[in-house]
Amino acid sequence: MAAAQIDTCVGDLAGNASAVLEWTRRAAQTGAQLVVFPEMTLTGYPIEDLALRASFRRAAQETLEQLARDLDADGLGDVAVLVGSVGERASRRRRPGADDAAEAPRESGTEPLPDSELVGDVVAGRPEARDAVRPTNDAVLLRGGRVETRYSKHHLPNYGVFDEFRIFAPGDEICVIDVADRRIGVVICEDIWQDGGPVSLMDEREVAALVVLNGSPFEEGKGHVRAELAARRAAEVDAPVVYVNLVGGQDDLVFDGGSFVVDRDGSLLASAPQLVEHLLVWDLADEGEPAQRGPVAPPLHPDEETYRAVVAGLRAYVRKNGFRTVTLGLSGGIDSALTAVIAADAIGGENVVGVSMPSAFSSDHSKDDAADLAQRIGADYRVQPIAGMVEAFQRELALEGVAEENLQARVRGMILMAISNREGHLVIAPGNKSELATGYATIYDAGSIGGYAPLKDVDKSRVWALARWRNDHAIDRGEIPPIPESSITKPPSAELRPGQLDQDSLPPYALLDEVLDAYVEHAEGRAELLARGFDPAVVDRVLQLVDRAEWKRRQYPPGPKVTALAFGRDRRLPITSRWREP
Amino acid sequence: MAAAQIDTCVGDLAGNASAVLEWTRRAAQTGAQLVVFPEMTLTGYPIEDLALRASFRRAAQETLEQLARDLDADGLGDVAVLVGSVGERASRRRRPGADDAAEAPRESGTEPLPDSELVGDVVAGRPEARDAVRPTNDAVLLRGGRVETRYSKHHLPNYGVFDEFRIFAPGDEICVIDVADRRIGVVICEDIWQDGGPVSLMDEREVAALVVLNGSPFEEGKGHVRAELAARRAAEVDAPVVYVNLVGGQDDLVFDGGSFVVDRDGSLLASAPQLVEHLLVWDLADEGEPAQRGPVAPPLHPDEETYRAVVAGLRAYVRKNGFRTVTLGLSGGIDSALTAVIAADAIGGENVVGVSMPSAFSSDHSKDDAADLAQRIGADYRVQPIAGMVEAFQRELALEGVAEENLQARVRGMILMAISNREGHLVIAPGNKSELATGYATIYDAGSIGGYAPLKDVDKSRVWALARWRNDHAIDRGEIPPIPESSITKPPSAELRPGQLDQDSLPPYALLDEVLDAYVEHAEGRAELLARGFDPAVVDRVLQLVDRAEWKRRQYPPGPKVTALAFGRDRRLPITSRWREP
Repeated sequence: MAAAQIDTCVGDLAGNASAVLEWTRRAAQTGAQLVVFPEMTLTGYPIEDLALRASFRRAAQETLEQLARDLDADGLGDVAVLVGSVGERASRRRRPGADDAAEAPRESGTEPLPDSELVGDVVAGRPEARDAVRPTNDAVLLRGGRVETRYSKHHLPNYGVFDEFRIFAPGDEICVIDVADRRIGVVICEDIWQDGGPVSLMDEREVAALVVLNGSPFEEGKGHVRAELAARRAAEVDAPVVYVNLVGGQDDLVFDGGSFVVDRDGSLLASAPQLVEHLLVWDLADEGEPAQRGPVAPPLHPDEETYRAVVAGLRAYVRKNGFRTVTLGLSGGIDSALTAVIAADAIGGENVVGVSMPSAFSSDHSKDDAADLAQRIGADYRVQPIAGMVEAFQRELALEGVAEENLQARVRGMILMAISNREGHLVIAPGNKSELATGYATIYDAGSIGGYAPLKDVDKSRVWALARWRNDHAIDRGEIPPIPESSITKPPSAELRPGQLDQDSLPPYALLDEVLDAYVEHAEGRAELLARGFDPAVVDRVLQLVDRAEWKRRQYPPGPKVTALAFGRDRRLPITSRWREP
Repeated sequence: MAAAQIDTCVGDLAGNASAVLEWTRRAAQTGAQLVVFPEMTLTGYPIEDLALRASFRRAAQETLEQLARDLDADGLGDVAVLVGSVGERASRRRRPGADDAAEAPRESGTEPLPDSELVGDVVAGRPEARDAVRPTNDAVLLRGGRVETRYSKHHLPNYGVFDEFRIFAPGDEICVIDVADRRIGVVICEDIWQDGGPVSLMDEREVAALVVLNGSPFEEGKGHVRAELAARRAAEVDAPVVYVNLVGGQDDLVFDGGSFVVDRDGSLLASAPQLVEHLLVWDLADEGEPAQRGPVAPPLHPDEETYRAVVAGLRAYVRKNGFRTVTLGLSGGIDSALTAVIAADAIGGENVVGVSMPSAFSSDHSKDDAADLAQRIGADYRVQPIAGMVEAFQRELALEGVAEENLQARVRGMILMAISNREGHLVIAPGNKSELATGYATIYDAGSIGGYAPLKDVDKSRVWALARWRNDHAIDRGEIPPIPESSITKPPSAELRPGQLDQDSLPPYALLDEVLDAYVEHAEGRAELLARGFDPAVVDRVLQLVDRAEWKRRQYPPGPKVTALAFGRDRRLPITSRWREP
């Protein structure tokens, strides 16, 4: 069988269907009789409230049926093709806490949805629609030119970035398909993250393998969690588990692929590389024979994994939104340097427009570093001094102090937006997670405006680590390190007044990032932080900054999620709150 | 008994507790033996992911216990006080689709949570914490100096703006309390929106009344839905239902109060006015006697209701975030005129700083109208021409076309941010729902920057209607209409080039808003819109604009939700999507 670890785009039904056709062709050439695609293949993932639109569901269903016919017409009718798509269920909304119990799961039927169910309309928030037709998150078997079987995901995650229980109706049947006289169990993503449920019933069906369609977002160090979980399910069904994951970026999520096959004893039988499209081919052993081994991709270093995830997120955002080029301000500092290198790796240095916007407070080394960086990555480099525009504002407004500092920063933001308007580049924002968390940034400056913030979920300590990894990686390959050493080593400064340093306003970043990690990622309170020995003055300063920055954070453009809790969809906090840690 | 329709603030445990004490005093003076407060009184509502922070839950519990003692010390120990707060439950996460069935609800115990349950830590998104202690949405009876009974909400809404199933564990007990030898049933908000569940079991308990603690956000025309629903439950339990709702704004939600008592035959027994704090006192009839009638507040005209909701939302956002004053650009157009009047009604005209920022393309009537408006509402009025700053940019960048138009618009945004920085005003954004939906605005201009957008969920047609209502309201009261007539009647224009009119780029607003309502609020597809007779060219234009504007919409500051589906928390759509209506 083959696991097709592909990159889909939300809403691109035709494009995603073409990809299924193309990858099925390749898989068939290897002799595969079953090709498994990632979760919600046809629709893209996550589709969020698009699922609530009846016209979208109808179009997805039509595309699915056409795809089945196209596969058959292409001579692939004998191949079993498992894809994900949106389905429908004419059911009452399952209400938490109600006794919506517990019909025993039934084996999945083999009939496609009758046309009569492909009507109706559901809008979140409209009480009158709560009992109407609801969408489902389905795995669909295409074979012989038709939709043969359909399975609806049982477990709908509703935490972190996931809103599935909000959108989908859960399924209550289990799905076992026959391929070449072997029984293959089918489940979707969260179904294996919960004890009980469909997997616990598979062992009675004596499946030869369990395949799992996934849309599992990247998160630092998540790989081994997936593998352990899959191994547990493999032991449960006493058969190998084939875990097929989505790859590529979608808005603020990055899917890292890394599909794999794990045996019931926990041993890794095969795996695909992370963060690239890949066809993982693995043969199911004959009955009674020991499990076959396939190719195994070497694991990535944690910094490389995160770096490549950030690159993938930016590349997807640029391309899937129809841009070819990006622009950003180059200050000579580490954030904009790393962001520019990430952009160059994502879409090519020649598609990056770096703009140096020096002021009276910009040091010579900053300007030199910016020019040096641009030259190393082959970017289109421009210098646009801001003095004339700042003076024009100052003649009218005579600002002082922080207002004057912010003015300079916002003039830079305006210049980038103007260049974007004129030339059609996507503006990208180099702001990092530490400054975003603490609000240590001018809102609407060059670090926070634009369409996408590649470092939004990368704290400052990690920014330096990724920069060093990237330079070392270049050296390992005999290339010139893209980031000037002095951008990495100099003390960070916004250069908005003479001698200004970040460390005048913030605790040292190593300390700040440690407190942020405890407070934000691990929800530790002030008491716990003090008990761990942090300086009370530092703790109070950081908590005050974080608690006040919520509104600013909401103004940031989206950025990739790479840690357990990124700012964005997976963190929902009131903007207006008087809560202060006691 | 008394329904205390009060305004709380999220996270302000001490302030909310003080309010409970103060309003209980007032209620006791009327002889009330039971005082019922809105949902999540102590914590504010909605607290979103604050609920997942153990330190917050601990502090809420300590505040609750202290409040019980303070009430007693104040001589109010005999009064039964029902408040909402966050609780905890050491339970497995309820999994949708799993057989989490259906222990029969039990009558609520009378013991407070043991201290041992007030530990633990839950972070959304961390699989390892999924089975840990989880927060609950509770109604708590304070009496005799202690926490006497606690009820956890069963039905946790998970649609529209509601994320409760994501955050809270559902309760499975029912709650009937004794007050002056009468049995009173207690439930919370969504519990009455679902058939079955706790209310269906109340009739066996022969309650004399059912009280409902609510945090029900304002939505046009929602009042009668609440009343009909409550009447259904009153018939079910064969006793009056006392519906107590929160009032005031919290971020993008506005709670409109309008608490009421409805009898089992559907007749309204008493009601509080909307959108103001109020103590509704109503006497429970003796057993066997006909239901008592209390004061009934006259209903508001729909335009007045929406206008007051928008005012309440802005007032709360300004005050709860610690601001006293606001600033905005005054163009002479209807959006900024209405926004300024709303601000004057919310916080006083003397706290509104209106800035006229004329360019070469600004008409004389625009400047006159802006000055006239500012004078009528008593605003601090300033004129800041933009020519000098625009020229400074143009000398360097030589922009043309849309880029040049956007430059002018963004210079205005920068001026407001600079004035805000210098003087400490909150910048408010006059952009309306129609322009937000279609992306017909310059991102980071004076219409879209800042902290709060009062008209974010008010479409252009409604902007005119609210302006007319506000002027008529002034005339009715013998006051000068605040909005210059020509701001209402002149054709809308961004005035960014000579002779520019909105209608050159958009369909007429009456038509546009009708298509938007069908497409956005009612999720109709292209086919349905065409079937209803809309011009295909108009439909395609509007759909294209809306589908492309998602990223721009996310850059808008929060604004009040006044329709079924506002842009913001209750609409979750992918930013990057290739989906186009077929």
